[in-house]
Amino acid sequence: MSDTNAVVDALSWTCPAPLRDRPRVVMGHGGGGAMSAELVEQILLPALAGPEPAPLTDSAVVELGGARLAFSTDSFVVRPLFFPGGSIGDLAVNGTVNDLAMSGARAAFLSCGLILEEGVGIDTVTQVAEAIGAAARAADVRVVTGDTKVVEAGHGDGVYINTAGVGLVPAGADLRPDRVVPGDVVLLSGPIGLHGVAILSERENLAFESDVRSDCAALGGLVEAMLSVTTTNLHVLRDPTRGGLAASLNEIATAAGCGVVVQERAVPVPPSVAGACAMLGLDPMYVANEGKLVAFVAREHADEVLAAMRAHPLGAEAAIIGEAVADHPGMVVARTGLGGTRVVDMPLGEQLPRIC
Amino acid sequence: MSDTNAVVDALSWTCPAPLRDRPRVVMGHGGGGAMSAELVEQILLPALAGPEPAPLTDSAVVELGGARLAFSTDSFVVRPLFFPGGSIGDLAVNGTVNDLAMSGARAAFLSCGLILEEGVGIDTVTQVAEAIGAAARAADVRVVTGDTKVVEAGHGDGVYINTAGVGLVPAGADLRPDRVVPGDVVLLSGPIGLHGVAILSERENLAFESDVRSDCAALGGLVEAMLSVTTTNLHVLRDPTRGGLAASLNEIATAAGCGVVVQERAVPVPPSVAGACAMLGLDPMYVANEGKLVAFVAREHADEVLAAMRAHPLGAEAAIIGEAVADHPGMVVARTGLGGTRVVDMPLGEQLPRIC
Repeated sequence: MSDTNAVVDALSWTCPAPLRDRPRVVMGHGGGGAMSAELVEQILLPALAGPEPAPLTDSAVVELGGARLAFSTDSFVVRPLFFPGGSIGDLAVNGTVNDLAMSGARAAFLSCGLILEEGVGIDTVTQVAEAIGAAARAADVRVVTGDTKVVEAGHGDGVYINTAGVGLVPAGADLRPDRVVPGDVVLLSGPIGLHGVAILSERENLAFESDVRSDCAALGGLVEAMLSVTTTNLHVLRDPTRGGLAASLNEIATAAGCGVVVQERAVPVPPSVAGACAMLGLDPMYVANEGKLVAFVAREHADEVLAAMRAHPLGAEAAIIGEAVADHPGMVVARTGLGGTRVVDMPLGEQLPRIC
Repeated sequence: MSDTNAVVDALSWTCPAPLRDRPRVVMGHGGGGAMSAELVEQILLPALAGPEPAPLTDSAVVELGGARLAFSTDSFVVRPLFFPGGSIGDLAVNGTVNDLAMSGARAAFLSCGLILEEGVGIDTVTQVAEAIGAAARAADVRVVTGDTKVVEAGHGDGVYINTAGVGLVPAGADLRPDRVVPGDVVLLSGPIGLHGVAILSERENLAFESDVRSDCAALGGLVEAMLSVTTTNLHVLRDPTRGGLAASLNEIATAAGCGVVVQERAVPVPPSVAGACAMLGLDPMYVANEGKLVAFVAREHADEVLAAMRAHPLGAEAAIIGEAVADHPGMVVARTGLGGTRVVDMPLGEQLPRIC
């Protein structure tokens, strides 16, 4: 069976559920997969559209007062609030810093909106605020404006956080999936699945062989190191959070109109993650990360960008994991260790809800 | 009894409750009054402080790439989602647009973070999104980046919205309460109490004599008209939302180190609001507004700014309501219609929770 046939067969397996007819919001609408995309594309974008149609992206690049700014927002509803390797406060800072970094921007200023549930301990609020402060100082970003609302007991969930951020996009950086062309090399900054498995093990009180800690980290410095090699030949960056590496690669493939081929064995999966995923029936490609990025780079600069990544603490285990191809546009396929091929679908929802 | 004695007596009446020892968040922490201020000053600011101490304001003015930007955020948890005169979507746009306007900035770009509760109707989400879109178009601001999270049924409350916004601060504008000096004239853009009473009547299904509609509106254009008269002599602007006019005037008096005297009869209170407040035992000075502003202006430009306000649809009923004085610094007093004097305290929490 040729690869093409395998791909066509695989296509017919994708979920036929009539998502568009659901009358109510379900957890999957917040999972960063196909259902999230449908909610955005069918409901939110048409309603929010301004005079000029514009995508509603994770991070927008806008011009204001002569400055080229990246502007981004994220809300955080993770349970539990504190987990191995981080907390909702770390996520709230790093999530928005990373969204800006994916536009090439170094975050400069953050806003912080808290929705507190009546009855939550002041000590919990203090710990969360201290985590936000520590993460902001570590990422060299300033929290300059905020807002606090309180909802009645039973209507919230302790603490929800929203952050938004602005940063300056460096001259020459133009990171967009539609800049990807066949031949681009796919780089991954390190091992996948740590955040999702850490959350799951804490939430379900599962004891895996070894402790798995979230990889939650701010990627601004790593991106700066990559851009110092090449601004124009760095085509697109994504942080594979909700929906994991699979969602990020599918989004890029769709927007670029390219195919993507991933060498499965080249994708670093820590043994602890592989073990937990095997036990629970999860695919590491779909598990969330909070301190990783995937990059599509023109072939001529791939090795140099890889070297710059490996020289940075957050990219020490960076690897080339695949390439963009002209075949099967919009589709991601993985070459398995056994020499076979499988389609890496866009996830529908999220395997684990509330991971950020 | 002299005014000074009245003031001293009144001071001893302020609430002696030991707020700082509360171990848990209560509704009042979200009310925009003294308890909110304590939460910010005692918990959030110390935790979030960067290398340089900075206030955590409703709207920050920052420098980025040579541009002077206003940056602000607000979360919205109002119940019900739709009410006479507006909806949570209108509030989400206008609230952030108005925070930016209070820095003198015209809002350019908004972010929009939704926290949806599992089970909420897609039609409700659509209506909310359409309200956001319509309000954004009306305020001439573009929603350019967003995020959606879903929380399990029973953990949220249908729809929470966070918006953040950026806008350009015009040259010469420098709106800060510490620029207020004795002699400044206090201007109010129109009648107070409409938003809070509209929410209350809808929530509690109260039928007042006449329908009260929220005054929810975007104030960017009105502020632009005021700045066209004078940039330097417009000292400070505030939108009296949570905590009402009383909270805004107290915040300014405290930060300016001035006293403020308000002529009670000069403050426009619609008969419907006065009636509802009398029936419910509320003071209109403490009821939230969502489309009003209070301005402190140097005396030489007060009449001209007032005229510019009255020429704008959202300032047609603008009035001079008082002045900044050197006496009783940090304190707001009202001259009553009968010639007496009463202290207008900083509210503790909010008379009505979840009004925005």
